[in-house]
Amino acid sequence: MSGRLAIIAGGGGLPAALAAADPGACCIAFEGAEVTLPEDRVSRHRMERLGDLFAALRAEGVSRVVMAGAMSRPAFDPAALDVTTTGLLPHLMAAMQQGDDHLLRYVIRMFEEEGFAVVGVTDILPDLIAAPGLLAGEDPTAIARKDIARGRAILEALSPHDVGQGCVVAGGLCLGIETLQGTDALLRFVGETPAHLRREGGGVLIKRPKTGQDLRVDMPTIGPDTLRAAARAGLDGIAIAAGGVLLLDRAEILSLCRDHGLFLLADP
Amino acid sequence: MSGRLAIIAGGGGLPAALAAADPGACCIAFEGAEVTLPEDRVSRHRMERLGDLFAALRAEGVSRVVMAGAMSRPAFDPAALDVTTTGLLPHLMAAMQQGDDHLLRYVIRMFEEEGFAVVGVTDILPDLIAAPGLLAGEDPTAIARKDIARGRAILEALSPHDVGQGCVVAGGLCLGIETLQGTDALLRFVGETPAHLRREGGGVLIKRPKTGQDLRVDMPTIGPDTLRAAARAGLDGIAIAAGGVLLLDRAEILSLCRDHGLFLLADP
Repeated sequence: MSGRLAIIAGGGGLPAALAAADPGACCIAFEGAEVTLPEDRVSRHRMERLGDLFAALRAEGVSRVVMAGAMSRPAFDPAALDVTTTGLLPHLMAAMQQGDDHLLRYVIRMFEEEGFAVVGVTDILPDLIAAPGLLAGEDPTAIARKDIARGRAILEALSPHDVGQGCVVAGGLCLGIETLQGTDALLRFVGETPAHLRREGGGVLIKRPKTGQDLRVDMPTIGPDTLRAAARAGLDGIAIAAGGVLLLDRAEILSLCRDHGLFLLADP
Repeated sequence: MSGRLAIIAGGGGLPAALAAADPGACCIAFEGAEVTLPEDRVSRHRMERLGDLFAALRAEGVSRVVMAGAMSRPAFDPAALDVTTTGLLPHLMAAMQQGDDHLLRYVIRMFEEEGFAVVGVTDILPDLIAAPGLLAGEDPTAIARKDIARGRAILEALSPHDVGQGCVVAGGLCLGIETLQGTDALLRFVGETPAHLRREGGGVLIKRPKTGQDLRVDMPTIGPDTLRAAARAGLDGIAIAAGGVLLLDRAEILSLCRDHGLFLLADP
C-alpha cells in the first residue's frame, strides 16, 4: 500500500510514534483534542467541518488514513456545521447512541466512502503487537491461569454488547470491568477495593479486543502507565491478546514488569 | 411455615428490620461482622466453628434461618476450626473460588443438610419488594427507556458468569458495571467520570438479580444511601426488577426521589 498517510491524532504517545515512523505523514487533530505532537507538526480541523477536512486531505495528496490515540467524544457546535457534516450527522448521532464500536465502524466507513484507505496502527508499526508467549515475569500460577480464563469468558459475554476491553479477576472474583472511562480508571477502582474483599493473590488484568472489533481503530493499548497502575492496584500480572493489544513503549513496559514483579502474558 | 427463626445478621439495616418484625427471633452474627443490631440482642459465633453454631441453633429451638445483610468474606483461622467446619471446608473453599452465587448456594445447602429451612427476607417482610410500575418521579424518557433495556441486556449477558447485579447506562453508554465492591462503589466510580465522557441525560442505574439467582440469600437491595449516591453521580433514575430487589426504608427512598428529581421504576 502506498500514497501519503494522514494520522488523525488523539491523546497519548501513539500519534508521535506513527509520525516518527513516517516523517512524510500529514498529522491532523480536531480542535480541542489533546495531542502530544508538536503543534507546528499538526494541522487542526473542526469536527463540524468534515467536508473541509476531506478536501484538505485530498489537496495534501493523502490516500491513507490511520486513527491513533484516545479521542474524547466530540461536542458539536451546530452553528459551525458544513454541508458534508450536516449530511453525515444523523448517521453519526445514531452510531454514537450504540456504543464505541458502532461509532468507529461508521467513522471508518465515512473515510472509505470518501475514497481514503483506512489502515491500522500495526500496518505502520508492526512491532507494537506481541507474539503469543510470556513476555515478562514468572509463569502465572494455576490460580492466575484460572483468573485469566474467567476474565476472558466475562469479556466474551460482554462483547456483543459493545462493552469491556478489560477486566480484573483475582482468585476467582471479578473486581472490575472496564467501561468508557478506560483501563487506568478501572485499575484505580480495583486499587480502592477494601482489603477485606480481597483474597491472597493480587489478581490479573485481562485485556483483549472485543470479539469482531475492527482493529484499525481503537485497538486496545497498554503502556507504562498501565503497568504502574496495575502495580499500584496490587495485581500479579497482565494477560493480553497476542496480536490484539498494542504495547506502547515495550522496553519500558518490560522494565516496569521486572521492577514490580508483574508477569505479562500474551495469550493466543 | 412455623418454628423459631434465626437471623444470620450482616451489615446494614435489614437484620434490625427482621428482628423488629419477629421479636422472638434468635439473632446470630459471626465474630468480626459489623452488625447494627444492639449487641445484647446478638449471639456471636465463630465462622470456624459451624458445628457449635448448628448445635446452638437446635438448642434454641430454631427451625428456620434467614440470612440478611452484607457479610464480608470470612477470614478463617485454621487453628480454630471445629470438626464440622473442617469437613465442610473443601466445599466451602471450592465454592468461594466460583463467585458469590456458588458460595451462597453452598451455604444454603449446608444449612438445609443440617435440617434447617432457609427462608428469604421477603417471606418475613413481604412489603420490601415492589410491584411493577413507576414508584416515584416522572416517566422515564425514551432515552432512559433505551438505557434501561441496554442495561438489562448487559446484566443478562453477565449472569451466567456470576457477575453484575447492577450497571449504569447513560445515553447508550455503559458507565459502570457492579462488581464485588457493590452498588455504592459503582455509583462513586460513575460520579468520577470526566465530564467530557458524559452526554446529556444523566443515566440510569439498572439493578436486577442475576438470572437464576437464589433470592433467599443476597437479594439485591437499594436503600436511602443508594438514592443519595445515585443523585451524587448525576443519574436521572433507577430501574429495579419488580419482585427482585429489596427496598430498604421505602418511605425515605421515595422522599429522596422527590428531593433529587429521580425516577424509580420497577420493571417486570
